[in-house]
Amino acid sequence: MNIYQEKAAQAVALLQELDLDCWLTFARETGERPDPGVEMLLGSSLTWNAVLLIGRNGERSAIVGRYDLENARASGVFTEVIGYDEDLRADLLAALDRINPRSISLNYSLHDHTADGLTHGMYLLLQETLAGTAYQQRLVSGEGLLAKLRARKTPGEIERIKAAIAVTETIVGDLSAQITPGRSEAELAAWVHNEFARRGLPSAWDYEYCPTLNSGPESAAGHAPPLAHIKVEPGHLVHIDLGVKHEGYCSDLQRMWYVRRAGEDKLPDEIQRAWAAIVAAIDAGAAALRPGVAGWQVDAAARNVLTSAGYDEYKHALGHGLGRACHDGGPLLGPRWPRYGNSPLGIVEAGHVYTLELDVMTSAGMLALEEDVLVTEDGCVFLSNYQREIFLI
Amino acid sequence: MNIYQEKAAQAVALLQELDLDCWLTFARETGERPDPGVEMLLGSSLTWNAVLLIGRNGERSAIVGRYDLENARASGVFTEVIGYDEDLRADLLAALDRINPRSISLNYSLHDHTADGLTHGMYLLLQETLAGTAYQQRLVSGEGLLAKLRARKTPGEIERIKAAIAVTETIVGDLSAQITPGRSEAELAAWVHNEFARRGLPSAWDYEYCPTLNSGPESAAGHAPPLAHIKVEPGHLVHIDLGVKHEGYCSDLQRMWYVRRAGEDKLPDEIQRAWAAIVAAIDAGAAALRPGVAGWQVDAAARNVLTSAGYDEYKHALGHGLGRACHDGGPLLGPRWPRYGNSPLGIVEAGHVYTLELDVMTSAGMLALEEDVLVTEDGCVFLSNYQREIFLI
Repeated sequence: MNIYQEKAAQAVALLQELDLDCWLTFARETGERPDPGVEMLLGSSLTWNAVLLIGRNGERSAIVGRYDLENARASGVFTEVIGYDEDLRADLLAALDRINPRSISLNYSLHDHTADGLTHGMYLLLQETLAGTAYQQRLVSGEGLLAKLRARKTPGEIERIKAAIAVTETIVGDLSAQITPGRSEAELAAWVHNEFARRGLPSAWDYEYCPTLNSGPESAAGHAPPLAHIKVEPGHLVHIDLGVKHEGYCSDLQRMWYVRRAGEDKLPDEIQRAWAAIVAAIDAGAAALRPGVAGWQVDAAARNVLTSAGYDEYKHALGHGLGRACHDGGPLLGPRWPRYGNSPLGIVEAGHVYTLELDVMTSAGMLALEEDVLVTEDGCVFLSNYQREIFLI
Repeated sequence: MNIYQEKAAQAVALLQELDLDCWLTFARETGERPDPGVEMLLGSSLTWNAVLLIGRNGERSAIVGRYDLENARASGVFTEVIGYDEDLRADLLAALDRINPRSISLNYSLHDHTADGLTHGMYLLLQETLAGTAYQQRLVSGEGLLAKLRARKTPGEIERIKAAIAVTETIVGDLSAQITPGRSEAELAAWVHNEFARRGLPSAWDYEYCPTLNSGPESAAGHAPPLAHIKVEPGHLVHIDLGVKHEGYCSDLQRMWYVRRAGEDKLPDEIQRAWAAIVAAIDAGAAALRPGVAGWQVDAAARNVLTSAGYDEYKHALGHGLGRACHDGGPLLGPRWPRYGNSPLGIVEAGHVYTLELDVMTSAGMLALEEDVLVTEDGCVFLSNYQREIFLI
């Protein structure tokens, strides 16, 4: 089975598990506006309005514009691929009639962006297309289905994530030799970009701030590009946040170096203490991460360790799902803040892949760590080589 | 003014012209799911839920997650950039209270995908966020505003499109020397990809089928990748459909070659006749293209010339807007088929940029032509160097 067939088989199994009748993706121009439903079922984009319909009894129909026919067939997912020129309504109604679903799960969600590919305009257009039929009243959010489908990684998906992490760690290892006083953040980031390019790997998120790279206390925090006027100096912490997409799947790691001043043979106490608190908090998060817990409980375990050690709490989630998207779907290992909606309430399952990440500001710059882990039947395993010590330059 | 400031100024002017009070973009994770509203105002993506609000009196507010602050400021568009950690509701209500809009134009549209960035989940979340306020009842489609904003190119946008076309034509010119019997479609497409890569230019649409490249009658039609087992042969038509993104703006051209058989000094009659019909149809479309006409009228002018010459009608629109997206917003120069919704009813204005494209199948392969044109006050001008003759190999 290819990766799309793996996900389609998983979708059929999930429809049965959740007692749902069908999952309907309605999308167009996904080269410009990707839809997570499409990208799980097709390795290519859809141009004209298209329907991908998966039923609980294994029905798999694609209704696509004539120019998308070849690509829809190439996925190997669909038992029926119908091309149209002018209007897909008749084919859509025929496909629905064969299933006669009690409800139709769609790609929308208030709080999970990876389950929210359906645009509002397409939702209204689908309602219009189904007007006068019983189906119009049966449209529901497929959020629960999609969160599980997205988060439960298949063997093929886990292999791809591992491969993305492995190449990222190779790049990080080689980067150490590049970090010398006088080199700018922008130069180091360009070196990393070149490593991506020569391997033909896209960045895991926006190219201009993947990697994020910070040297010392004057560097810009957050999603800002590396700066040309900030140069590595003795006494700086150097921080990188990076990931690649390997065969469509992401890595996401943060790594740390400290550039020693003349005569320094170890980390300054302030940094050593903060690092110990970060590692202890990641450890606590990893210890709490197992099937059956809610995402917020994992975050709280790490957050409490950090604040108990006297540090400010990090202003983000401890971890997010990792997969096709760097910020992948499913539960968020985050606090129950309004902006996170219900995503921290999601329940962790075996087969989920998460980041574990947090940061502390120090007088030498940002100190942060991010690892990637896979949830197993009774806990979690690290997919990345856990950085337990800051690399010394 | 940078390109984002140009579009923001145009948005304010359009709000006044259309007697609308404000335009609100509500988006998240736009690195994964781009929103056309965001990309017109920012050169970077937004990660957490964010509001970009433009008012008719020039109000320009961005309310973004803390890590997106620097990027929102960097656009130079916003008079107010507010960062938040937990919840944007209070800042959103305060910004709306300052405008007290009669209606709030949102990024959704049934038929124009470039005006349809708002997901259904985000629409519901916005409604929930505004619950209990008068604003909840004032949400409307910004389709009319966005179609005009997207379609009316600023001087900076036209320059970028011209630059994208110029580099594409250079690549097409150099490609002629590569087209020799025995080379496969896949080899020629790889050569084009290499030309993109060494200039650092992304493809204008999905990389795997940009370029589309077809040699002879056995080639796959439509959005299919170039094939390794189809090789250029004497007697083949070689067709390419390609475009690049230059500083975020697209070109989109189709060009034709004919590979002569031994002893042939000119085109076979069948091909010459079909080509004459194609050129005449493009001419008719260009002659009809001027401010004030509806998109479908331009399509009909070309379509009638082609069918009157005895050829089957093309199964797509004569032309589409060209800009940030290869299939850009605004009117479609297409037939009034159900699948095109109201987009062929849109009215052409000066400053719009369109493709003009159509195709005929022949016994030697696909024959097609696509040019890029700018609408002026009293007609249109070609931005591309109109291919009036098939290139002979």
